[in-house]
Amino acid sequence: MRLATFRVDGVVRVGVVDGDHLQAVEAPDLLSVLVEWEQSGPPEPRGQVWSLAAVELLAPLPRPPRNVFCVGKNYRDHAREFSRSGYDRSAGGEELPSAPVVFTKPPSAVVGPGATIERHPTVTKELDYEAELAVIIGRPGRDIAPEDAHRHVWGYTIVNDVTARDRQRAHRQWFLGKGLDSFCPMGPVAVSADEVDPEGQARPALELSCWVNEELRQRANTADLLFDIPTLIATISAGLRLETGDVIATGTPAGVGIGFDPPRFLDRGDEVTITISGIGTLRNRVA
Amino acid sequence: MRLATFRVDGVVRVGVVDGDHLQAVEAPDLLSVLVEWEQSGPPEPRGQVWSLAAVELLAPLPRPPRNVFCVGKNYRDHAREFSRSGYDRSAGGEELPSAPVVFTKPPSAVVGPGATIERHPTVTKELDYEAELAVIIGRPGRDIAPEDAHRHVWGYTIVNDVTARDRQRAHRQWFLGKGLDSFCPMGPVAVSADEVDPEGQARPALELSCWVNEELRQRANTADLLFDIPTLIATISAGLRLETGDVIATGTPAGVGIGFDPPRFLDRGDEVTITISGIGTLRNRVA
Repeated sequence: MRLATFRVDGVVRVGVVDGDHLQAVEAPDLLSVLVEWEQSGPPEPRGQVWSLAAVELLAPLPRPPRNVFCVGKNYRDHAREFSRSGYDRSAGGEELPSAPVVFTKPPSAVVGPGATIERHPTVTKELDYEAELAVIIGRPGRDIAPEDAHRHVWGYTIVNDVTARDRQRAHRQWFLGKGLDSFCPMGPVAVSADEVDPEGQARPALELSCWVNEELRQRANTADLLFDIPTLIATISAGLRLETGDVIATGTPAGVGIGFDPPRFLDRGDEVTITISGIGTLRNRVA
Repeated sequence: MRLATFRVDGVVRVGVVDGDHLQAVEAPDLLSVLVEWEQSGPPEPRGQVWSLAAVELLAPLPRPPRNVFCVGKNYRDHAREFSRSGYDRSAGGEELPSAPVVFTKPPSAVVGPGATIERHPTVTKELDYEAELAVIIGRPGRDIAPEDAHRHVWGYTIVNDVTARDRQRAHRQWFLGKGLDSFCPMGPVAVSADEVDPEGQARPALELSCWVNEELRQRANTADLLFDIPTLIATISAGLRLETGDVIATGTPAGVGIGFDPPRFLDRGDEVTITISGIGTLRNRVA
C-alpha cells in the first residue's frame, strides 16, 4: 500500500495512493494509521477521492515523534569519498566504519516533497545533499535479532539528508551540521514493505538515483549498504526500544558534493531530485 | 518557581513545590505549563496539596517533544580526561573542542528521580555517569543572539548523561552510546530561571556535585563551562528553531568513570547522586 499525507482546502489528511489519484482514510495522520495497522491491518480507503495533482503532498510523517535516526558512511564508495574529502573529522583516519555510525536529525527538520530547502547563508557556505532510503518502523521492539528485523519494518520512504559540511566538520559530532530547519526532505509517499519487497525479505534491492538539476550525481543499489537493514535495526534497537513511526535513514552512496574535487555545493535555485524504484521521486529546490 | 511532575493514586500531575509539600496546578503536564507561562505567566497552584514524601516524583518532562540536546566536552578538565582516556575517537587528537560538540539522547531515555538505570549487560560492559546542568527552553526562537539567550531560558533541571563508553567509542558518533533506555535520568524538579539566577543573567554560577555511593566523584561550578549557556543557545539555534520544552544538557565536569586509571565503571546496585545548588538532588540506582 502507498500512503501519502496531504493538504487540501487547508486540511491535512492521510490517503491511499492509486496511480494518479488518492483516497482519504479516516485516521488523522500516518502515525495513527501505523499504530492501527499493527493491530488490525491496513486502513480502508473510504473518503473522498482526489487527483494527486490537486493536492499538496506533505512529508508522510510531517513531525516524527522523535528525532530521525540516521546512518553515516554506509556505502563503501561514499565512505571513501567522505574520508578523502577531509570533512570527516570524527573517524580518526578509518576509511570504512567498523560499526554503524548513527546520529540524528530533529523532527523540526522534516519538510515535504516540493518544499524549499533553506540555504541558511549565515550558518553555512557548504550546503550538500545525500539521497537515502529510509525505513519506517511499524511494530515496536527492543533487542531485535537481525533475522526478526523485517517484522518490525512497516515500510519505506525517501529522505534527503541535507548537510552543512562546514558545521559537520567544525563541531565533530554531526548533529549541528545535519539538524537545520528544512534539512530533512521526506517523501513523496510511504510504501509498505510488501510493495517493494515482494519476497518478504528485509533487504530490498532498490535502485536509487539523485540528480542536481539535470546532472546525475548518485546512482546505487540499496543491496550495497555496508550494514544492511537487519543489522541496522539490530544495532539501534540494542537496549533502545524502537517505536512505531520511527524513521531510520540508511545512509547515502557516493556522489555527494564533497565527493568532487573541488567540492560542488548546492546553490540558490538548485533542484535536488531523488528517485528510488518502487517508492517514487522526491524533489526539492534550494531557496 | 519550582515545578514537579508527579504521580499519585495512578494519576500524573504537575505541581508547585514549596518546601516539603507540593500543590497541583490545572495544566495536564509541564509542557503545557511552559507554553502558557510564555503567554500569561506562572500557573496558580489551586489543586490539592500533598506531602512530597507521599507522591512519586517523575522527570519534570517525562517525554520531551524531541530528543534532548546534549553538549560534550564542555568543561576543560573533563575534556582533558576524556581525550586522555582513549575513549574519544571523534576528536582527531584535539584536546579541547574549538566549537561546541552537540549530540542527542532520545526522549525514550528519560526517567525520573529514584528510577532505575538499566545495566544493559548484553550491550555494554562500560557504564558511566555524567552529572550535568540542563537548560529548559521557554520562548521559542531561531538565530538567537548570545545577549538575548536568557530570554529564551525558562529554567533548569539536572540530567545524568549516562553513557555506554564502549558503544560511544565503537560507533564514532555518540548517539548509540548515549541513547539507551533509562540513560537520561532527569529531575527532581524544574526550577524557573529567576530562582537560581536572581540577577537575570543567563549564566548561573551553580555548584554541581556527583557521588557514586558515598564517594564524591565530580565537583564543579557551572561558571566554568567552556562554552557558556548563551553561546550554546546561540550555536544550537543558528538555523534550528528552538521550541518550548527543549532540553539542553550542558556537559559534565571532570570525574567520570573513564577519568580514572583504570576506569571505574558503574556496577549493579551503585547509586549515583547529583546535587546542583538551587535545584536539588537527583538520585538513581543501577539495576
